[in-house]
Amino acid sequence: MNSITVSPEALQRFIQSAFTSQGLPEADAAQVARLMTEADLQGSDGHGVIRLPQYIKRIQAGGINKHPNIHVVQERAAMAVVDGDNGMGHLVVSRAVDIAIEKARTCGVAWVGTRYSNHAGPASLYARRPLEHDMLGLYFAVGNANHLPPWGGTDMLLSTNPIAAGIPTAEEPPVVLDMATTVAAYGKVKAKAKRGEQMPAGWMIDRQGKPLLDPNKAGEGFLLPIGDHKGYGLALIVGLLAGTLGGAAMGRDVIDFNADFKTTTNTGQAILVIDLAAFGDPALFKGAVDKLVRDIRGSDRLPGVERIWLPGEQSHEKRNRYRENGVPIAGGLVGDLHKLAADLGIAPLEEMALA
Amino acid sequence: MNSITVSPEALQRFIQSAFTSQGLPEADAAQVARLMTEADLQGSDGHGVIRLPQYIKRIQAGGINKHPNIHVVQERAAMAVVDGDNGMGHLVVSRAVDIAIEKARTCGVAWVGTRYSNHAGPASLYARRPLEHDMLGLYFAVGNANHLPPWGGTDMLLSTNPIAAGIPTAEEPPVVLDMATTVAAYGKVKAKAKRGEQMPAGWMIDRQGKPLLDPNKAGEGFLLPIGDHKGYGLALIVGLLAGTLGGAAMGRDVIDFNADFKTTTNTGQAILVIDLAAFGDPALFKGAVDKLVRDIRGSDRLPGVERIWLPGEQSHEKRNRYRENGVPIAGGLVGDLHKLAADLGIAPLEEMALA
Repeated sequence: MNSITVSPEALQRFIQSAFTSQGLPEADAAQVARLMTEADLQGSDGHGVIRLPQYIKRIQAGGINKHPNIHVVQERAAMAVVDGDNGMGHLVVSRAVDIAIEKARTCGVAWVGTRYSNHAGPASLYARRPLEHDMLGLYFAVGNANHLPPWGGTDMLLSTNPIAAGIPTAEEPPVVLDMATTVAAYGKVKAKAKRGEQMPAGWMIDRQGKPLLDPNKAGEGFLLPIGDHKGYGLALIVGLLAGTLGGAAMGRDVIDFNADFKTTTNTGQAILVIDLAAFGDPALFKGAVDKLVRDIRGSDRLPGVERIWLPGEQSHEKRNRYRENGVPIAGGLVGDLHKLAADLGIAPLEEMALA
Repeated sequence: MNSITVSPEALQRFIQSAFTSQGLPEADAAQVARLMTEADLQGSDGHGVIRLPQYIKRIQAGGINKHPNIHVVQERAAMAVVDGDNGMGHLVVSRAVDIAIEKARTCGVAWVGTRYSNHAGPASLYARRPLEHDMLGLYFAVGNANHLPPWGGTDMLLSTNPIAAGIPTAEEPPVVLDMATTVAAYGKVKAKAKRGEQMPAGWMIDRQGKPLLDPNKAGEGFLLPIGDHKGYGLALIVGLLAGTLGGAAMGRDVIDFNADFKTTTNTGQAILVIDLAAFGDPALFKGAVDKLVRDIRGSDRLPGVERIWLPGEQSHEKRNRYRENGVPIAGGLVGDLHKLAADLGIAPLEEMALA
């Protein structure tokens, strides 16, 4: 089908109707739809509406609890563990972030982990949440499929376990980092396959340790961690913090949610929220970040480099552009969503396309 | 001079006598000497006694406050900022870790940052400290010289800003990560120069963006971040957390402590301590980490790989070996320390060499 452009409101309505058609409560469906639309709006298009067919398949297979009792199971003044009762990850992590913000307001700093959560979309969505409270966020998650062996090994015991950070600014766009601890996220490999392109050397290796370039053979190899052994170490630590510490799956216990739609994933995430006001006048901090951002942007450049980007700046520009002009949806995805809408008996997305 | 081997006790005594000869109080000299010896014991030999001449030079130049009033300037239940009053970094960070451990005991989690601190040795020393309390540590620091430009740029606005983590285990060695956010730490470049070796491609580039291989020309180029733009983002976030948040130097304000021995560095570090007991039974967590460690170590291996290492395992083995057999000190360093001892009028290290 042809590519289309849709308003964020229409996209959100479409996603919401898909979830309510499967029996998710209206408010929960709206919240998940809003966050998935946010993902597409900021250009995290591997984590937005593209995931809808997979989420619906999991709900239909009984792999998601549609009426979860999301509740705190461990708590102290500056920490909590939230049991997501196998609900949609977006709901579970949102609850965790809300609790962390409240606790940080009094304690200065708070850490909230999740267990029995699920895939929750792009890490940056949650690391950004504290910004409006003049707080900063650090977010860690266990990926939902193991594609990374330990350094030197071939058993896939680790995932792309991402790290995200959201740092408040005064006038500049917020500094928002969102990175997998592998050179390429697995979604990028899938995108290469879909476009019929080869991967660059350095993304994956095969079981002999040789560069793997054909994305259709991704199943025969492994992702490579950033900085060799360093990224392996980072992926491990992130997994221990986001998974093991909160009582969620890590290592051999991680379920490949691309292959298994039924087994409870027991996904773990963790958010650290820091209240700027505890450290002094937030305006001073934000002004210092602005100055640093401008120093970085104004740096002399290597030959051929047109512009120096800050983390999150490209997403910020996309969000502004897509809010104004609508969100582009590629033709292949429009087709997938057309089929999904027909299956669910809901109005298809392409009917809501902007002229 | 010839290489020697010394007992850790002798090494610590030698370092301590150097500091007391310069007027550092006995207890402070002992604490710094103990931590520097710990660095050599765990094989962090770029951060141990090799730094002694540089530290002494800074003290003699008036760049270190020998009688600092290390005190808390911001505080809430789960956080504090410690002003180091330009004392030795080892003393300042040790104080910060002690406070974080105390606060984590009640709040579950605590974050303590430093300002007006100084270079404090290897990050892992501090990330490891909470382990004996069944707590885990995450440590961030601003490096003491900017060798890293933003991705695509040539202005050196960032340092190798390290991340370290210490994770408790039951029977296995603790998992201890300690990594610069650059492919190579600058100390490794200096070591290559000293040995007359070329650097591998990927460590540094020149101002044209071409690989820089001659470590003697390091001043004409820049370190490369791990994972390209990802490591740049990590170095930036670590600097914002360890520097800007606590009111310490970051970006253009960072003093190159290899070139300037007098100006107050206003170094910043930050430690996050998490009390395992707040999350459940610490024994369960430590058992789960042990299992994961064994799964990783037992992974099938790529051709030619003899052993899979966990982060911190090599340091753990070195510590055991050096405690038993003594710490090796390379000939060049023995010569430097011989000269230092003569200048300070203290007994030279080589007189304490083991047979």
